[in-house]
Amino acid sequence: MNPEFVDTLVVKNDTKIIFLIMDGLGGLPIDGRDRTELESARTPNLDALAGKSVCGLLDPIGYGITPGSGPAHFALFGYDPIKNNIGRGILEAAGIDFPMTDRDLLIRINFATIDTNGIVVDRRAGRIDNETNKRICRKLQDNIQKLSGIEIIFEPVREHRALLTLRGDGLREEILETDPQQAGLPPFPPKALVPEAEETAALLQELIHKAGEILSDEEKANMILLRGYSRYRRYPTLEERYGLNALAIAGYPMYRGIARLLGMVIGPQPSSIQEEFIALRDHYDQHDFFFLHVKPTDSRGEDGNFDAKVAVIEEVDKLIPSVLELQPNVLVVTGDHSTPAALASHSWHPLPVLLSSATCRPDRVDRFGERDCIAGGLGRMPMVYLMGLALAHARRLEKFGA
Amino acid sequence: MNPEFVDTLVVKNDTKIIFLIMDGLGGLPIDGRDRTELESARTPNLDALAGKSVCGLLDPIGYGITPGSGPAHFALFGYDPIKNNIGRGILEAAGIDFPMTDRDLLIRINFATIDTNGIVVDRRAGRIDNETNKRICRKLQDNIQKLSGIEIIFEPVREHRALLTLRGDGLREEILETDPQQAGLPPFPPKALVPEAEETAALLQELIHKAGEILSDEEKANMILLRGYSRYRRYPTLEERYGLNALAIAGYPMYRGIARLLGMVIGPQPSSIQEEFIALRDHYDQHDFFFLHVKPTDSRGEDGNFDAKVAVIEEVDKLIPSVLELQPNVLVVTGDHSTPAALASHSWHPLPVLLSSATCRPDRVDRFGERDCIAGGLGRMPMVYLMGLALAHARRLEKFGA
Repeated sequence: MNPEFVDTLVVKNDTKIIFLIMDGLGGLPIDGRDRTELESARTPNLDALAGKSVCGLLDPIGYGITPGSGPAHFALFGYDPIKNNIGRGILEAAGIDFPMTDRDLLIRINFATIDTNGIVVDRRAGRIDNETNKRICRKLQDNIQKLSGIEIIFEPVREHRALLTLRGDGLREEILETDPQQAGLPPFPPKALVPEAEETAALLQELIHKAGEILSDEEKANMILLRGYSRYRRYPTLEERYGLNALAIAGYPMYRGIARLLGMVIGPQPSSIQEEFIALRDHYDQHDFFFLHVKPTDSRGEDGNFDAKVAVIEEVDKLIPSVLELQPNVLVVTGDHSTPAALASHSWHPLPVLLSSATCRPDRVDRFGERDCIAGGLGRMPMVYLMGLALAHARRLEKFGA
Repeated sequence: MNPEFVDTLVVKNDTKIIFLIMDGLGGLPIDGRDRTELESARTPNLDALAGKSVCGLLDPIGYGITPGSGPAHFALFGYDPIKNNIGRGILEAAGIDFPMTDRDLLIRINFATIDTNGIVVDRRAGRIDNETNKRICRKLQDNIQKLSGIEIIFEPVREHRALLTLRGDGLREEILETDPQQAGLPPFPPKALVPEAEETAALLQELIHKAGEILSDEEKANMILLRGYSRYRRYPTLEERYGLNALAIAGYPMYRGIARLLGMVIGPQPSSIQEEFIALRDHYDQHDFFFLHVKPTDSRGEDGNFDAKVAVIEEVDKLIPSVLELQPNVLVVTGDHSTPAALASHSWHPLPVLLSSATCRPDRVDRFGERDCIAGGLGRMPMVYLMGLALAHARRLEKFGA
């Protein structure tokens, strides 16, 4: 079944759906222990909820595929993550709330340090601070506003990262990334990968040359490396696809950016997990879909810190009663992918999910953990179908066929 | 997810992957017993391995589909078995290491016995011996070398089976098979199934007529039946798709042939199961992927001999420690399909699989058997995704998307 098939069956009603997403939730045992982070965590509230829910394991993209955050979140919201593969340029732009237009080519800049021979010696320019980043972007912008009739816009992101936007007609994204991916090499030329991209490539070549001149007196950030070229692309929103008036509660720019791309209203920026749950309560009357994004599970997994990830899960567990008090029609608790502390990175392992609703058929799972969820009533399912299932339980899908 | 999607994420490293394939591994209980062949076998080594692995059940093609050996092995190596459906003609040619060219139409011959009325009385010509087969092929070749500018090549295979190759331009495979599939009927005419195949069909009609004349003095093999027409087709190799330098250790021609079609190096021909495991050890340093094919599980299943199949599985179990000593990064133990002794044939039942790796998330399965694997962490999965999963565990796939 094509994930977009559900769109044809959507009806509106007053039900409410909450997606509580612990980023990187899935884990692995570490160092001779025999439990994952989630299995190790004391989670009485999630366990009790699992006992009344239907559980399972989700594959974000497919067997063996380790997803980036972009594709994983697209799958969560029911967007085919491969067909809708989202470029890094757009993700950066979305993350800083840059007002994109459909004439934009969005590119991620890494400021880098090159030596006198043009060899990259630091791909991150010593991770310059945000202030330096802003100053350098202003310097570039003051000297370059237009090239061959194409508008050029520099926007700082953070540390060594910035956004470069080319705005004009006929721009193409099929161009070689200039970041050589390791120090000791010169930047690659921005070569056109298809003949139609020759003009854009020539323009970028000129821009890189100019940028090099302008930054030649900088100690660290004396070159720009380009990657993630992406033409702006408009995605159908959750309102358009599912008739949902969605609110995103997320602290991190990238997730706020993805939510914005999909037409969600962006909530206030919370400064703690607890604040996210308070924001959920405060805005509960105004929306019917809630994306609540908890980042630290992923961050502690990326750090390789098993116990700290366990602690984050336990902190979330304590806040579960405040969600249940809202009595949502559908509550989904899961992640976007696995980030096992054992690997200190995203991974391809499926991740546990629970779906709680008055219409769910309970299974025998009464603990929320990877091994328990194997026996869940959802089985092992592709993440992209989760959204449709939530809509069904919210009674927002009509019968198919007579 | 398209199974070829993993190809876009492949990276190279020094890890090693072993696929230990017991052909026809999956089974059924027989005669009032309540266990399958695998469940009946004493397999302490596989059981211990299952306890530390992730297990599941594989569907080679799909629910209810009984696969031939060709499609099943294509699925094992990550090639869509329906899209890449491999003709019997190519399989026969690969099995005898026939040097195919891209102008070839490859056809399986069954020598048969017809009576004076042209009715097939024995579709296998009394299973003539290999020497007779060779003599008859020579006789045909001596009398037919070319027809209408198309080169004709006869190659004996074994018993009543031979390979017919038509080499030339514009040959087509959309032609009715002439084997009537039962005695008591005349051979079917090689009718063109599409207009473009008319010329090839006429040529085959002429060839069958000539062959009948040449073989008219033979007592048993006095006719040829044609099936499995297949135009030569080059498949991308495991090296091209996955960057794997693969070794096939297999005793039977067809499996060596399939491995050769997929670009594997073909190991020495072993004369026992034990010799296969010795060959694995002897060549372990020179490759990074190993396809170890154990045939007798399937043969005993085809014989309907439950106990003999159990004995083969127990023989393999005893050799497992010699594989573990090699410390492969990923060890997969499974089959290509089920061959229950109860049915004395291939079947559509899913078959058990275990994947052992440092990065696997253990489940609660601690015996390697069909019923135990139902509760495994892999769930029930399409076989075609197994290869990508093995690559992921071997850390040979990079992250998808930002």
